[in-house]
Amino acid sequence: MFNINNFLHSNSLSPALEWKGYPKYNFIGGHNDNESIPVKSLKESIDNVILKEGKTLAKYGLESGPQGYLPLRSFIADQLKNSASIRCSEEEILIVSGSLQALDLVNQTFLKKDDTVIIEEENYGGTISRLNKLGVKMIGVPLEQDGMNITELERTLQNLEIKGIKPRYIYTIPTIQNPTGTIMSIQKRKALITLSKKYNVPIFEDDCYADLIFEKERPPAIKSFDDDGYVVYCGSFSKSIAPALRVGYLVADWPVLSRILPHKTDAGTGSLEQMTLAEFCKNNFNAHIKTLRAELKNKSNAMCNAIDKYFGSSADYIKPDGGIFIWINMPKNVDTSRLYDLALKQGVAINPGSDWSINENGRHKIRLCFGNPSALEIDEGIKLLAQICQKEFGVPVQIANL
Amino acid sequence: MFNINNFLHSNSLSPALEWKGYPKYNFIGGHNDNESIPVKSLKESIDNVILKEGKTLAKYGLESGPQGYLPLRSFIADQLKNSASIRCSEEEILIVSGSLQALDLVNQTFLKKDDTVIIEEENYGGTISRLNKLGVKMIGVPLEQDGMNITELERTLQNLEIKGIKPRYIYTIPTIQNPTGTIMSIQKRKALITLSKKYNVPIFEDDCYADLIFEKERPPAIKSFDDDGYVVYCGSFSKSIAPALRVGYLVADWPVLSRILPHKTDAGTGSLEQMTLAEFCKNNFNAHIKTLRAELKNKSNAMCNAIDKYFGSSADYIKPDGGIFIWINMPKNVDTSRLYDLALKQGVAINPGSDWSINENGRHKIRLCFGNPSALEIDEGIKLLAQICQKEFGVPVQIANL
Repeated sequence: MFNINNFLHSNSLSPALEWKGYPKYNFIGGHNDNESIPVKSLKESIDNVILKEGKTLAKYGLESGPQGYLPLRSFIADQLKNSASIRCSEEEILIVSGSLQALDLVNQTFLKKDDTVIIEEENYGGTISRLNKLGVKMIGVPLEQDGMNITELERTLQNLEIKGIKPRYIYTIPTIQNPTGTIMSIQKRKALITLSKKYNVPIFEDDCYADLIFEKERPPAIKSFDDDGYVVYCGSFSKSIAPALRVGYLVADWPVLSRILPHKTDAGTGSLEQMTLAEFCKNNFNAHIKTLRAELKNKSNAMCNAIDKYFGSSADYIKPDGGIFIWINMPKNVDTSRLYDLALKQGVAINPGSDWSINENGRHKIRLCFGNPSALEIDEGIKLLAQICQKEFGVPVQIANL
Repeated sequence: MFNINNFLHSNSLSPALEWKGYPKYNFIGGHNDNESIPVKSLKESIDNVILKEGKTLAKYGLESGPQGYLPLRSFIADQLKNSASIRCSEEEILIVSGSLQALDLVNQTFLKKDDTVIIEEENYGGTISRLNKLGVKMIGVPLEQDGMNITELERTLQNLEIKGIKPRYIYTIPTIQNPTGTIMSIQKRKALITLSKKYNVPIFEDDCYADLIFEKERPPAIKSFDDDGYVVYCGSFSKSIAPALRVGYLVADWPVLSRILPHKTDAGTGSLEQMTLAEFCKNNFNAHIKTLRAELKNKSNAMCNAIDKYFGSSADYIKPDGGIFIWINMPKNVDTSRLYDLALKQGVAINPGSDWSINENGRHKIRLCFGNPSALEIDEGIKLLAQICQKEFGVPVQIANL
């Protein structure tokens, strides 16, 4: 028999496990609620667009070329102007296969092994794992409730300058930060642009959750304060419409975008999805996200209530301003990676904090997603999680109603 | 202003040029004819499936997990059994975002810089460029009309063994070889398996064009003769249904597939496209490709007639047995890379042979695709190409009807 082990290199990835279905209490991943998918409007949108333009599927890139379906780029340009005060043209937008591809493309353009980047020290697990895989050094900046600690950011930039190290970019998720759920203030957004220019370091602004602010006003994007091309911006439809539609976008000035585009070697993002989204969004996007925000706020409340009910004061967290996750600080004796293992065996999936943080404190934090499970599942799952945590770590000391 | 040039590494790719639309006579790329897209049946398929399963778009991976939409994998397993004699289960199939992603995933699993692979010496440009980018050494095996020269292949394997070099795989496009359009004989397919096992080198079988044989019988895949897991197989719907649908697939035994899967970090291939294809293919695939083959045969004839008419005996080629391209051997004084530049300026796009070959002879060869242009465009475009070639290289000496 052929033995693959003889052909793997020393840095090969661990093998995938056979997929056995989703856990019963699924508090991980960017899934939506089944009921939030606008099936009827999506169907109508597809029907309209495929009859009009289906023949263009004969060409890679349709009639729009390698940057993606032009009507979708037009919608994005309009929408970013109205919702995030970004001024950009269709030519400055690249449609990508989900924002994960956006990360990969920007990384391939800017980074090589042993490079240094600056990131928020609590961060999206997919960003941390990608940078680790590339052998890139991450320097973390602490977060406050209104975004990055700007004093620390400038100190970091100064220190690196003294050492002669040029960071390749500053990566930030300013709006509904992942995992903390916070929103960066306008003042800090402006300060970031000032520092970016002063130290000549570009900003990579990941704005995937910005459509999901529950009630507060969406602040202008960092990119909206950028007149000099320092910001590469990315967004996604995974969170606002459906995760299984693999469509996101990058926005950058052409001199930058023209360097990113050659790394996209997949002959384009799925066109049926682009066409459907363009048609759907034109008429339905704003109404849809309004409904979605209200639904997510209810889920968030259900999750907060369950945490309060079963963990009491042992679980320390800030109620998120939007999005689909809550970041919880547990007592220091709770090793959340161990909790993850134990909970998964009982059908409760959580994100252990060490995957979502580059500082030591991640060890006793947890990220819990509330987008997919029902209110009942949230209550049952958090109760079970509290029982498991109590048995292993004595936290919480007591569980209400038990 | 931000200057990206200060942030690029020494091996960065050339910048993209602004897209100015397709050339008038488009003889490159795997495009189909607009009229060959089964718009009505695709619409009906989408309507059926989205009403039934649209809600599942709420999850990355739908209800099928990371290997892709299960009904599509079921169709592929059935179809490969019936058309290529491959016995595989749904668990041995990974849906990918086009066969280009299949190449990338297999390369990421098996290759690192300075590795050696064996390939057919005239080959798909996308394969050659990817391997070049990875810094992998390609050793070419000459082609005959019935596939790789097996004597040369064994000599190559022996030489490498003597030198202590282990080739990471043997890459082949056995059915409608790209660019030669030839079909490997059954005898050679079996010989390839024997050599693969004898020298313990896996085979990467790229079968993207196998659905497009005009009239001959499709031979069993190399993989069908493989009982020991030596073959990694890939296929695609880009050529058989529509290029803009970015869906392909990999087939391998689980011990191999489980090593490939972790490299797919895009959170899945577009689900709307997978769902649509699964529903469409179930009822329409075989009837559709029967029609498509007849249309492509007509296009192939139109292209051959135009070449004969305008280039006469200066253009030496073998009429393809299927697919969408013709590989032409020009007189040695014709530098086809220069012809490419000159022709493109006049709206005629061709593939210069040096991009599609790793031997010197590629310099005076051309690949011409006939899938997209109409019969009239083929005639006009080849006439113009002959005029340009005559003016620059004196080939052909004389053009009929001019």
